[in-house]
Order: sequence, then structure tokens, then C-alpha cells
Amino acid sequence: MKCRVCREPAVIDLRRHNANFCHEHFVAHCEEQVRRAIRHFSMIRPGERTLVAVSGGKDSLALWALLGSLGYEADGLYVGLGIDDYSDESHEYARGFAESRDLTLHVVDLATVHGFTIPGAASATRRAPCGACGLSKRHVFNAFALDHGYDVVATGHNLDDEAAVLFGNVLRWELEYLGRQHPALPAADGFARKVKPLYRLGERETAAYCVLERIDYQVEECPMAAGNRHLGYKELLNDLEARSPGSKASFLFGFLERAQEQLADTTRARADADDAVLLRRCTVCGAPTPGEVCAFCKLRERARSTS
Amino acid sequence: MKCRVCREPAVIDLRRHNANFCHEHFVAHCEEQVRRAIRHFSMIRPGERTLVAVSGGKDSLALWALLGSLGYEADGLYVGLGIDDYSDESHEYARGFAESRDLTLHVVDLATVHGFTIPGAASATRRAPCGACGLSKRHVFNAFALDHGYDVVATGHNLDDEAAVLFGNVLRWELEYLGRQHPALPAADGFARKVKPLYRLGERETAAYCVLERIDYQVEECPMAAGNRHLGYKELLNDLEARSPGSKASFLFGFLERAQEQLADTTRARADADDAVLLRRCTVCGAPTPGEVCAFCKLRERARSTS
Repeated sequence: MKCRVCREPAVIDLRRHNANFCHEHFVAHCEEQVRRAIRHFSMIRPGERTLVAVSGGKDSLALWALLGSLGYEADGLYVGLGIDDYSDESHEYARGFAESRDLTLHVVDLATVHGFTIPGAASATRRAPCGACGLSKRHVFNAFALDHGYDVVATGHNLDDEAAVLFGNVLRWELEYLGRQHPALPAADGFARKVKPLYRLGERETAAYCVLERIDYQVEECPMAAGNRHLGYKELLNDLEARSPGSKASFLFGFLERAQEQLADTTRARADADDAVLLRRCTVCGAPTPGEVCAFCKLRERARSTS
Repeated sequence: MKCRVCREPAVIDLRRHNANFCHEHFVAHCEEQVRRAIRHFSMIRPGERTLVAVSGGKDSLALWALLGSLGYEADGLYVGLGIDDYSDESHEYARGFAESRDLTLHVVDLATVHGFTIPGAASATRRAPCGACGLSKRHVFNAFALDHGYDVVATGHNLDDEAAVLFGNVLRWELEYLGRQHPALPAADGFARKVKPLYRLGERETAAYCVLERIDYQVEECPMAAGNRHLGYKELLNDLEARSPGSKASFLFGFLERAQEQLADTTRARADADDAVLLRRCTVCGAPTPGEVCAFCKLRERARSTS
């Protein structure tokens, strides 16, 4: 097994690319995929301030490292979710990485700042924790970026994540979600730009990148996510990929190249026809919301009053 | 386990419908699904002559029986594919069913009429046999319908078939195929109308219908199809259905209700912009074709000259 580029012994084979790479050229491959993603969707422009959503897992740390290698100055934000030891450990990995590279890591602890935790929110709402967690992270990252003058929020969603989300949305033909599923969502009033520079790299690639680059990361899956639907879709797509390498990439990239825009147009046309939902300001926090109080503030209120 | 309708002991549970049925009401359920399919897409109008594509398997025989129960007069056409014992047996099942119900079964034997068999075509083209088989059946059914004054060709494609085809087309975002995947394709110059009245019934339902109604059918899968991609997609969708009953139906019906039309519009708009492909007549058989000789005649020529 030899590196495709230099013919030295390879350390990883990527069946999807039908190629093997040595350490050096695998890192170059990862950088190239991120460079292409950023360029193709104008994700980050020169001089812009970037905030990386850092969980302490392989994807967000690989993202932070890769942005640095490509010359982007990016700070990190870790959101403390209060999931017992798991959150404490994840925070340690994030902090360790930031210190080792002399990077700025901001921290927003949900319990300290907002008075609730994800397990608390899940039991208050009696619903799956992943919904409350996603909502809280989106809110906190966006608000922090706006408050601190960041132009763009970069998240570590990889090819496997995006393919699994796409799969779930296609299974139910959720046209609105399909119309919005994109590696780069433009800024809008009250929303920072959101980008996913890792959408061309698989989970196995970001893990290998961290291992080879000696980045310590939280290896465990979140204990609250076990058995969720998203992980089921990932398994299913992994079966498909094993039978036919490249399936995940052609599914996601084919969507982005050939279908996403039409579905987005349809969604927009329908929204216009239906009296587009007008966003106003949440009376509690000022975030954009179609109602009086935003979903995050409602969740916080509910989680606080129950605990 | 009691029948949802009459509370008598049930013989089948349909998790997707969250219901159990006795023999009588299960048959009524199947009839109702076919009635709804036909009505919703105006598949067969009063007085029209229908040709059922009969393979001798559960779907085509259930379809023929159900059309009869609903008062549609339909003849059958069996195409002899020359797949050794499998084809002979399948023909026997088709003939037995037709005789027992006093129905007209036409037969076109590929070897006799066209001088080749599917195994022969597969080895001549060195490609998977399913492509040659589908092409040949589509050609023969269409030509027979036009030559003998049938208004519509009805095929036994069920919910599982349609969901698996949709899955394959979505995985590669084949917009053209997606735009054309529909339970009822209108007639056009040189093409009979094609309808799929079983698209609302799963494979398990058509099999149970045949068993309960004492219809003998070819139980074996086609030996040439083993391991093909379509069957792989079916397995995968079965896994999904087991985890979450109703997934297949919401995937297929959601597509038909919310996405098919947009994708068809896009395909049409693109075809118009690209100088739509003009169909002319095959110089050998007269079928519509974009080239000089249609794909079926080319296949036949190649299969004959190799054997």
C-alpha cells in the first residue's frame, strides 16, 4: 500500500477516492478538501473573523486545526451542556487543544449563564434530548457570534453527518429542510453566516487526521444520543458505503449540485405565496423569532421552572 | 389479534397501517388500495381495454385478480424470457391462473418471435441481465398494446418496488428518472399509457393476498436477478421499515405528493432548453427512438449475431 502522491508507504486507504496516502499527503488531502469547500461556497472571505463551534470531538478539533493550517484566524466557543462527566471531559479536550496551539477558546456554560442543563431540559420537556441540545447550541453560537463581532460560525459537520441529515429529510421529503440544507447559509438580519467546511471529509477522515496529527479528542459518543434516529441513518449509510464505496459522497454532492437549488426555489415560492413568516425580536433575548418569545427562551423557561 | 373491521380473528397484521384484518377485510383493504390508486391518478377509465403485464409472480397475478374484482376487464400478456426452468414454471403459473378464471392470456416468446433469450442477451452484451430484461419487456408490452388496441398497460410494481427504485434514483439524484417516476405515465405518440395500480400495496400484502385467495404463483426470485442493486436497496429499506414502520410508504408517498412534480418541471424545463430530443421511428420496428434503430432492435441484433 503506497501513497498515491509520493509512493512512500501509506498510512490510510480511502476507498471512496480509490487512493492511499502517507501521513504528509493525507494531511494535504484534508487541507485540499477544506480549501475547496471554502472556495466553492465563499465560506470565509479574507479578513473575516471566524468562530468555530468546538465540542471537543474529532470533527470540531480537526476543523479548528485545518482552518489554522489554511491561514484562517479562528477562535473557538465551547458550550457547556451539563451532561455530567461527558461534558467535563469534552471541555478538557477542547481546552487542551486550544492551549497547545495558543488559541482563544471562549466558554458559555448553559448552567451558569442560562440556569439549565441538557439533561434537565430533556426531562422538563419529556422529549429526546438531541432536539433541546441542537436548539441550545444554535442559539448560543449565533448570539455569541453577533455579540462579539464574528462574521461567520464554522461547525464541524462532516460528510457522514450531512449525508445522514439529508437521508432523514429525503425519507420524509421535508422540502423546507431540504431547501435549507446547504454547506453555507448566508448571514441575515439577526443571523450570522453559518458554514460547514468539513462537508467533503468523512468521519473516518477527520478521525484519522486527529490521530495522525496527535490531537487528543473526546472519543465517546454523547451518552444522550445513543439510539437516536440520526445514528440509525448513519449505520444504514455505512452499510451502503461498504457495498458501494462513494455512495455517501455521490448522494450528498449530487443533491448539492443538482437538486438543492430547485427545492430551495420551491420552498421560497411557497413561503412567498403563504404570506412569508415575518421574523420579529424575541421579547426576552432579542433573537429573531416568528412568535413573541424565541424557542430557546421558552425552553430555558421551562427547564428552569421544572428543575 | 382481531380484525379492525369486524373483530373476528385476524389473519394478518399490517404494522404500517397499525391494523389487523380477517381474510375478508384484508381482501377488501387490498381492493380499496387499488381502487384509490386508480381513481387518484385516473389510471383506467370506463370502457378502456387493459393489458396486464403478467410474469406469473405474486404481484402480477394479484393485480390481475384485483382488477377483475373491481370490475375491470383485463387481458394478460406473458413474455417468455428464456430463463430455463424458471421461465417455464412462471409461464405455467400464469397459464394456470388465466385458465382457472377464464381469462385471456397472450404470450410472446422472445426466442420464437425475436430469436434471442435474456441469458443470451446478457452474455452478448456482457452486462447485467436485468437491463436487457427490462428493456425487452417494456418494448414487447408496449408494442403488443399498440398493435392490439389496448389503451393501457398495467404492471404489478408494488410499494416496495417503487420505493427501492426511488431510493436508487435519489441516491444518485437522477433528476430525469425522478421526473419520470410516477404511478401513471400518460400515453404519447408511440407509447401506450402505463400504470401501476399496486403502488399502495407492499410486497407482503400482495403475497398474503395470493395465499389467502389461493392463487398459485412463482415463489422463487428470478435466478438472474440475485445480488442486483435493486434487491440490495430493498433489503436496506426493509431494515428501515423494521425500525420504523411506515417509512417506505412515507418515503414514496411524500415524494409523489410533494416533490415529484417540481422535479418533473425542472427536467422538462431543462429538456426544452437543451433542444428537446426529437423521437422518430425505428427503421426496423417502428417504435419511437431518438436514433435510427431503437435500443430493443439493437439488443436483438447483437444477441442474435452472438448466439
